[in-house]
Amino acid sequence: MRVAVDAMGGDKAPHEIVKGAVLAAQQFQDSEILLVGDEKVIQQELESCQAIPKNITTHHASQVVSMDDPATYSIRQKTNSSITRSVELVAKGEATAVVSAGHTGAAVAAATLHLRTLKGVRRPGIAAPFPTRSGNCLIIDVGANIACKPIHLFQYGVMSTIFSKYISRVQYPRVGLLNIGEEDAKGNDLAKETFALFSNSQLTFVGNVEGREIFDGKADIVVCEGFVGNVMLKFAEGLATGLLSTIKAEAMKGFWSKLGLFLCKPAFAPLKAKMDFTEYGGAPLLGVNGVCIICHGRSDSKAIYNAIKVALQLSKNKVNDHIVAELEKANVPAASVM
Amino acid sequence: MRVAVDAMGGDKAPHEIVKGAVLAAQQFQDSEILLVGDEKVIQQELESCQAIPKNITTHHASQVVSMDDPATYSIRQKTNSSITRSVELVAKGEATAVVSAGHTGAAVAAATLHLRTLKGVRRPGIAAPFPTRSGNCLIIDVGANIACKPIHLFQYGVMSTIFSKYISRVQYPRVGLLNIGEEDAKGNDLAKETFALFSNSQLTFVGNVEGREIFDGKADIVVCEGFVGNVMLKFAEGLATGLLSTIKAEAMKGFWSKLGLFLCKPAFAPLKAKMDFTEYGGAPLLGVNGVCIICHGRSDSKAIYNAIKVALQLSKNKVNDHIVAELEKANVPAASVM
Repeated sequence: MRVAVDAMGGDKAPHEIVKGAVLAAQQFQDSEILLVGDEKVIQQELESCQAIPKNITTHHASQVVSMDDPATYSIRQKTNSSITRSVELVAKGEATAVVSAGHTGAAVAAATLHLRTLKGVRRPGIAAPFPTRSGNCLIIDVGANIACKPIHLFQYGVMSTIFSKYISRVQYPRVGLLNIGEEDAKGNDLAKETFALFSNSQLTFVGNVEGREIFDGKADIVVCEGFVGNVMLKFAEGLATGLLSTIKAEAMKGFWSKLGLFLCKPAFAPLKAKMDFTEYGGAPLLGVNGVCIICHGRSDSKAIYNAIKVALQLSKNKVNDHIVAELEKANVPAASVM
Repeated sequence: MRVAVDAMGGDKAPHEIVKGAVLAAQQFQDSEILLVGDEKVIQQELESCQAIPKNITTHHASQVVSMDDPATYSIRQKTNSSITRSVELVAKGEATAVVSAGHTGAAVAAATLHLRTLKGVRRPGIAAPFPTRSGNCLIIDVGANIACKPIHLFQYGVMSTIFSKYISRVQYPRVGLLNIGEEDAKGNDLAKETFALFSNSQLTFVGNVEGREIFDGKADIVVCEGFVGNVMLKFAEGLATGLLSTIKAEAMKGFWSKLGLFLCKPAFAPLKAKMDFTEYGGAPLLGVNGVCIICHGRSDSKAIYNAIKVALQLSKNKVNDHIVAELEKANVPAASVM
């Protein structure tokens, strides 16, 4: 199995990306890692490693998509970028999966354009793991699709159920629909129509989930439109970081509270671990014909290592085949597919 | 000035509502408080108070909107509910403002139906104060309108600017548009068109605000569609409460961390105060022809007291007159008003 890794994407590229790829290559010796990007730069990074695993190779791409590039520009003008080249390797069958911590919009656009969607899938969606009180839940979509229709949201529920079953090992993942009230008839037209589709499905649908119920773990999967999911995920990041840093700054002001914070430190550890995105290894873009893992822009070697691990799991478990089979079985009224 | 208070609305009604109203009546002796609801029940509550202020009176309403009632049902079937009666008092000019901690949907529906919108206003919006690192910001709309058009969002920016100027005393409130990226051309059609309206306005527009920038205080006002705002506000509530309780539960597990938590306690205080919604006194429903303050369902007497205070400030400062004048001046292309 070969994983194409975008060596140039992310705030800490190429150093941490290459380091993470080397770690993964050492660990998963029956797989191959293809580092895609400026060969010279990658080679330099590799040479600084203690030993270059044999199952790691490079693939040249002369351009890099910058964070300021609009996604459409990256597709049209930067056809030789590391992200596009990585995706093309999957499209051509030279790799089974792609991992990128670069420009999310560019990665989604490249994957949608070159890999196309799986049979029966209307729109791909990013399923981001999010910590809850008791574990974590998947929020889908967090920004791949900001013009959602009920059928898209319904398919997100199906696809992430398969992901949860085969990757997170949750046998009957509880699917919730993000909404502004718990009652069945709540929300905008999109929410109401999606509610009906879920209600008539074979999924373990737990109904509407309000914002305040996510952290409580009411559902294993929370389905929402990409604009809402993206805003919420980033908001949570800002809020959680902000709250913790405010507490810390306040505690550092006095001797006793400083001592208290020191003694309290172990109490923060489980929370910090839970909030540590590097543990999750990125978010899969579900629905494209190939495996595509989108990593946080701040990904370090550990995050990249874990993303490669998830990419391999998705390939080995044939998650995409299961998605196609499940969507074929899913009972969706023709009128909803418009 | 007379404030109609829905005595039966909220988890802690009627006890805490009546208590808050009495506190306000004692403090604002040049104003009158009208307690609306079951007269017998209210009278009993009043009698349990040390002294009944002379500027407090009751107004009978035989029905109560329950939290399970759909908003439309409350309007059609419960015409004698405390919330409808309270709003009617404002509509008839017998009160200048209404305060309710009851069913938000019912309050918005009653206010929109009976008070109608201010001249030039297309849709009312709820402006909820939200804590930030350095103070707080207003998020508008948090659920009054889940079928938003660019002109609605634009008017939210104008109305909350006036609110900030006259009530929060921020001379040039910075207005931000909630979006999924900082770049001008980001987001869905609603965001893009609203961005253009704000860019051509006289408001202090600081551009797109991403989820993670809210807590950092990038803007004094964050404009968004009601579905997104509602989800986000409730999500924040769940997350903040969840994070703090997780830390506490972990700390209580060990002797030293328990001691540490005790010593740390003062460090949590400013955060707790900031997150204490009872300080803010509810969220104004901006855009209706009258003053309407929507309180948190868990409001206690302090929250009700503060809500009445804000209601009086809105009336005294003629915020609605300023809104009408400002909207008349606002330069909105005719095509955007569709």
